[in-house]
Amino acid sequence: MTPPSQPAPEYQSILKLPKGFRAAGVHAGIKADAAKFDMAMIVSDPPETVAAGMFTTNKIQAEPVRLGIERLKNGRARAVVVNSGNANACTGPQGERDAVEMGRLAAEALQMPEEEVLVSSTGTIGKPLDLGPIRRGVPALVSALSAEGGDAAASGILTTDTRPKVCTTHITLAGKPVTLSGFCKGAGMIEPNMATMLAYVCTDAALTPEALRTALRTAVNQSFNRISIDGDTSTNDSVIVFANGAAENPVLTEADPEFALFQTAMNGLLFDLAMKIVWDGEGMTKFIELRALGAANDAEADKALRAVATSFLVKTGWAGTYPVWGRIVDVLGYCGVEVDPNRIAMWYDELPVMREGMSAFPDKADLEKIIKGNRYTITMDLGTGGSGSAVLYTCDCTEEYVRINMF
Amino acid sequence: MTPPSQPAPEYQSILKLPKGFRAAGVHAGIKADAAKFDMAMIVSDPPETVAAGMFTTNKIQAEPVRLGIERLKNGRARAVVVNSGNANACTGPQGERDAVEMGRLAAEALQMPEEEVLVSSTGTIGKPLDLGPIRRGVPALVSALSAEGGDAAASGILTTDTRPKVCTTHITLAGKPVTLSGFCKGAGMIEPNMATMLAYVCTDAALTPEALRTALRTAVNQSFNRISIDGDTSTNDSVIVFANGAAENPVLTEADPEFALFQTAMNGLLFDLAMKIVWDGEGMTKFIELRALGAANDAEADKALRAVATSFLVKTGWAGTYPVWGRIVDVLGYCGVEVDPNRIAMWYDELPVMREGMSAFPDKADLEKIIKGNRYTITMDLGTGGSGSAVLYTCDCTEEYVRINMF
Repeated sequence: MTPPSQPAPEYQSILKLPKGFRAAGVHAGIKADAAKFDMAMIVSDPPETVAAGMFTTNKIQAEPVRLGIERLKNGRARAVVVNSGNANACTGPQGERDAVEMGRLAAEALQMPEEEVLVSSTGTIGKPLDLGPIRRGVPALVSALSAEGGDAAASGILTTDTRPKVCTTHITLAGKPVTLSGFCKGAGMIEPNMATMLAYVCTDAALTPEALRTALRTAVNQSFNRISIDGDTSTNDSVIVFANGAAENPVLTEADPEFALFQTAMNGLLFDLAMKIVWDGEGMTKFIELRALGAANDAEADKALRAVATSFLVKTGWAGTYPVWGRIVDVLGYCGVEVDPNRIAMWYDELPVMREGMSAFPDKADLEKIIKGNRYTITMDLGTGGSGSAVLYTCDCTEEYVRINMF
Repeated sequence: MTPPSQPAPEYQSILKLPKGFRAAGVHAGIKADAAKFDMAMIVSDPPETVAAGMFTTNKIQAEPVRLGIERLKNGRARAVVVNSGNANACTGPQGERDAVEMGRLAAEALQMPEEEVLVSSTGTIGKPLDLGPIRRGVPALVSALSAEGGDAAASGILTTDTRPKVCTTHITLAGKPVTLSGFCKGAGMIEPNMATMLAYVCTDAALTPEALRTALRTAVNQSFNRISIDGDTSTNDSVIVFANGAAENPVLTEADPEFALFQTAMNGLLFDLAMKIVWDGEGMTKFIELRALGAANDAEADKALRAVATSFLVKTGWAGTYPVWGRIVDVLGYCGVEVDPNRIAMWYDELPVMREGMSAFPDKADLEKIIKGNRYTITMDLGTGGSGSAVLYTCDCTEEYVRINMF
């Protein structure tokens, strides 16, 4: 199944909603700062809209997550209402009623069945959701909905993020121009398997619910599940995609040769958004691409990289100008994966820093040039001779990260 | 087997070497700062001295660790020579030769068989050991050895520690006064299973090598293996104990009723030293005792506490005045242990903060009083109804921790 020859999709850092979508963001009063939006809404007008979602792997799921999993079982939803500032997690039966009520208020204002409306929350865990601001925010959102409202919505979902994260791309399916666009939030509590992260993707392509679900899962595994800020996986992570068919392409199935093209675009869009999350990691100053090879298998390579990416010593070392390969090899030794201590090798970008389990005595100036930059790659060979490999995108841990999370 | 009735041993924060021991610390030139000691030595004069050791669980073992494991197989050693500033880890065949040479130099100066001399190193990983300062340091140490040299030795093993950590206790075995004393280092890269930590214990009790090994293992599992600073387990961790029989008690075996008394003293000594490591954790401002109960089993309780104690979000929250129970329950959800989300409960000291999976709405002033203190206990019930429990001693993660480890 080869995709028809088309130029590779381009990914633009703007948010242009596809045909048939409207969005909005408002300040409803959940956050104290009146200049900050704290609610958002996306609506797809065509009734034939299909939807899919992926949610946190945390055993403690926020109430809106549980609602979303239930409502997306049939592959259908047309709207999502989001609040930032309160996670509505660990809030018990009252939290469940509040999530349902938030969805009901939106459905009523949008004149849609409740089952077609999803709910997301992000913010503090364990604090009951105050429905007062939600009651004021929902009608304000519905009045503000517009095809140009994407940027406002992208602002309404933010918490400690320093900026909105948006992306748009275009492809052609069966001769019809198709748009995919998305936005996301997340800056701390970010770890593969969908940490405190919300992402919404809209496309005017027509797909079956099954094809959309496959495309989402594949794209998430290559993007949001390959990033780590601090190793903490939240109770609220959600990635939701709507496809409304407004582009009028014939309904795409996984068997269609053009599905690969849609998948490529989806992969690229989510990857772009995921990288923007790392670049906005709380207090981050360096973007680090970690690569493992020579592992017994891919799972072991992945495990090693996640251990490296969550080591306090390694991450604080990156923040400085300390060549932390000694700390990295220490992690490889304790993280529980198979290694051959006498064959471990490591590179910073292309520069060998370690070979056969000991220093490769890199040129000090060459090494400093790399580690003083704001982006580099660390490749580690675990030395087992196996063909397992993995990649993970992460960042350093600075004093600023501590300051952000102290209060 | 009840121990004979004796008052519980008292633990003093001084280092009084037991009979038959001499020690020393010097500046040999490994550290740039001439005011800092960077080598230490302990010697037990009686030839009948027995010894035992426990070492890092890291798969990457520093060269001196490999040497120590080998030399302690027969339960005999009479001296240890230590350098700080360089870990002699990931240094390959040359590192192995350097560790052997460091031991040989000490053995020669002490006129002892090489096999009776242990070697420890702590500091930077991956840098070849410069034998120049070692060659100068060894004779200086031997000249300086004295029964009052414990404090100098306790200084000679430090790296980022802000102060020496020492303890002494006394018991009576078969009517003979017996002393146990010890010192340790470790301030970062500390995680249960013996992180970058060196500890030396001396006693003038007479024990069989087997009894000493048992006493050490039991005491370490209740002390050094129950602390966590940052979750990083080093390549160099070592706890070494010498027992030289100078107290002239009949040789103690595990079957002896008085063995329990010796074990109690050993447990208390190591616990005291371990707590001193947490209190000197890099940049720490708060000592946190974590308790888990209601886990499926003890291993699950332990796993949950280790995940909590290594969460960036939780540890930075402790540093501030943020009541992080929401972050803690988030960790319980993703750390892979069995929990019942609707039955999780939590207490800060005696104050309930969470019950039945949601906020217990603690009085704000009561909660603030606790979290503004420099020491408190967090108890979590995982809600499974099981009887698994565990305890772990840890500390917060501050901006100062990041500063210390940036360079």
